Amino acid sequence: MANTQSKARVLVVGTGGIGCMCSYALEQGGKADVTAVLRSNYDAVEKGGFEIDSVQYGKISGWRPANIRRTIPNIAEENIQPFDFILVTTKNTPDVRPTVEEIIAPAVTPSHTTIILAQNGLNLEGPLIARFPSTPILSSVVYLGATQQAPGKILHDDPDIQRIGAFPNATLDPGVGEDAAKRWIAVYNPTNKLETIYDADVKRARWRKLVYNASYNPVAAILGLDTPRMRASRHIIDDLVRPIMREIMAAAEACGVSGFPEDLPEIVIRGDPIDTAFKPSMAQDAEKGGFMEIENIVGEPLREGEGRGVAMPTLRTVYGLLKGLQLKVKESRGLWVPEFEEGHPYR
Amino acid sequence: MANTQSKARVLVVGTGGIGCMCSYALEQGGKADVTAVLRSNYDAVEKGGFEIDSVQYGKISGWRPANIRRTIPNIAEENIQPFDFILVTTKNTPDVRPTVEEIIAPAVTPSHTTIILAQNGLNLEGPLIARFPSTPILSSVVYLGATQQAPGKILHDDPDIQRIGAFPNATLDPGVGEDAAKRWIAVYNPTNKLETIYDADVKRARWRKLVYNASYNPVAAILGLDTPRMRASRHIIDDLVRPIMREIMAAAEACGVSGFPEDLPEIVIRGDPIDTAFKPSMAQDAEKGGFMEIENIVGEPLREGEGRGVAMPTLRTVYGLLKGLQLKVKESRGLWVPEFEEGHPYR
Repeated sequence: MANTQSKARVLVVGTGGIGCMCSYALEQGGKADVTAVLRSNYDAVEKGGFEIDSVQYGKISGWRPANIRRTIPNIAEENIQPFDFILVTTKNTPDVRPTVEEIIAPAVTPSHTTIILAQNGLNLEGPLIARFPSTPILSSVVYLGATQQAPGKILHDDPDIQRIGAFPNATLDPGVGEDAAKRWIAVYNPTNKLETIYDADVKRARWRKLVYNASYNPVAAILGLDTPRMRASRHIIDDLVRPIMREIMAAAEACGVSGFPEDLPEIVIRGDPIDTAFKPSMAQDAEKGGFMEIENIVGEPLREGEGRGVAMPTLRTVYGLLKGLQLKVKESRGLWVPEFEEGHPYR
Repeated sequence: MANTQSKARVLVVGTGGIGCMCSYALEQGGKADVTAVLRSNYDAVEKGGFEIDSVQYGKISGWRPANIRRTIPNIAEENIQPFDFILVTTKNTPDVRPTVEEIIAPAVTPSHTTIILAQNGLNLEGPLIARFPSTPILSSVVYLGATQQAPGKILHDDPDIQRIGAFPNATLDPGVGEDAAKRWIAVYNPTNKLETIYDADVKRARWRKLVYNASYNPVAAILGLDTPRMRASRHIIDDLVRPIMREIMAAAEACGVSGFPEDLPEIVIRGDPIDTAFKPSMAQDAEKGGFMEIENIVGEPLREGEGRGVAMPTLRTVYGLLKGLQLKVKESRGLWVPEFEEGHPYR
């Protein structure tokens, strides 16, 4: 019990591939008492634990985070100790309720908890700062690759690299965010075995990752293609992927993030292995009929760039198509009912 | 036999919905001896005839064109009479062999046969004029709506309207094409019951139809959506369909086809019935895993417009995506093998 008391209390929300590997890293470090919220995989993990095939930790069977549960803890109602950190590794789809801030609200203790958003894209922090103004909100740009192949069965095939810093927050002293980021890194990576990098330039890290995520991701989702096939078809790269990469770089520059090397697209185009039929996450979501993270990964960079006068015609069209695909997912779940009569926009 | 002798010999190539209804119209007129080439529906039609539910002719059962066959006639080898007209109602996919001119070549008698391309899009005539320079090539822009719901089962739900004229052909006297068009109309619509309109301005008729075909068709194909749903989602119209329509109109204008009314997009957007989940033909092809007519309907107008300096960013991106989807169809049929090793463009 003394041991647990000295540990940071960490809530992990979203325990798929990334969340599982982060939970495992946190427990390996010995500085965290992990509570993991599991949804679709709860029964499998409760029964047999996670089965992990990891590029960093080898093969692991029957492992469970210290505490697992099905629902978000309600600090007030359950009368439990506050969480020091809430690590959010769910998808972020602000166009679909409940949103991240709605999901985690019952577990947040204002002025005490630090929230880490290990999610992709831009402008994630706005709704969280608005809802929890006195709470440091950290950014983690995650390069770890992990896929849940079946409930509780994780393939971890790219090592755990994260760039962590505080999102700018006008209502907090800048030192607060930096301190929180450094405390989190000390909890996450106390023995320095992982590449958990403090990086105050959150904006740059996020735009840099978008060069891949806003290009390969949506094109793969629309076409249902893996990255080797996209690369093997010259025109998909030349007419779609590279033009979007250049639009993202131009938008980043307009937002004050300059100095990416001119040949960055060529490097990113060749980043994935050529001998594995890997589909980017948005394509995996599309295949499962799930929601795609189209707003933070595509919509926000588009609005940031176009708002500053950057021409982004390829991404603009791709965004329109993604919204159409997202609408189909919404309809399949009863969240959109097309109106053909009264109120029809184009009757 | 005397009766047959006085009739024009017409070969119909591609006897799906449109080809069936054209064959029926030709026989109703009494001036044509029809030979129809049937492929996937040959067995069904040979056994039980066509079953037609027609907005113009009512319900028809057990009807067969005068002559049906599985293959293109070979005039030379089969020692048969030349055809006066060859009506082509197949899809036109110049990016997939065999192409139209390859398919029909054995049935063409140069300087005798007139070829009618009842197909959509631009620049269909080039390969045919090159192959059959002394043969009049006619354009038919078809507004007839007919769908083959099962082999031999046709729903004919939009009346037979066609705008017919000769494609410009520098190697023939202009009168030759006009004469051929008028002879064809006299064979097709001798009793004037149909709207079979002589229209020398082939280019205008084709660009006009592209306002619908290059916008709704590809967006529906990529999204897998029907037109009422597209209209019920304001952004699909505002961000995708109308921008493409405007790009097409600008390209048409640059090609000398001017004077479309400013509000043409609003008319075309509302052209389909709102209470029927109709999917444009390209979306139907995509759903069946078939080839789409992406070159004549999207690629050619894009090249015509961009070649004249017209910005067509929406259609350009859509074209890139369609090529990606077409590549998947090619791979599924063994016509494209992605190269991941030697010769890989982005290794």
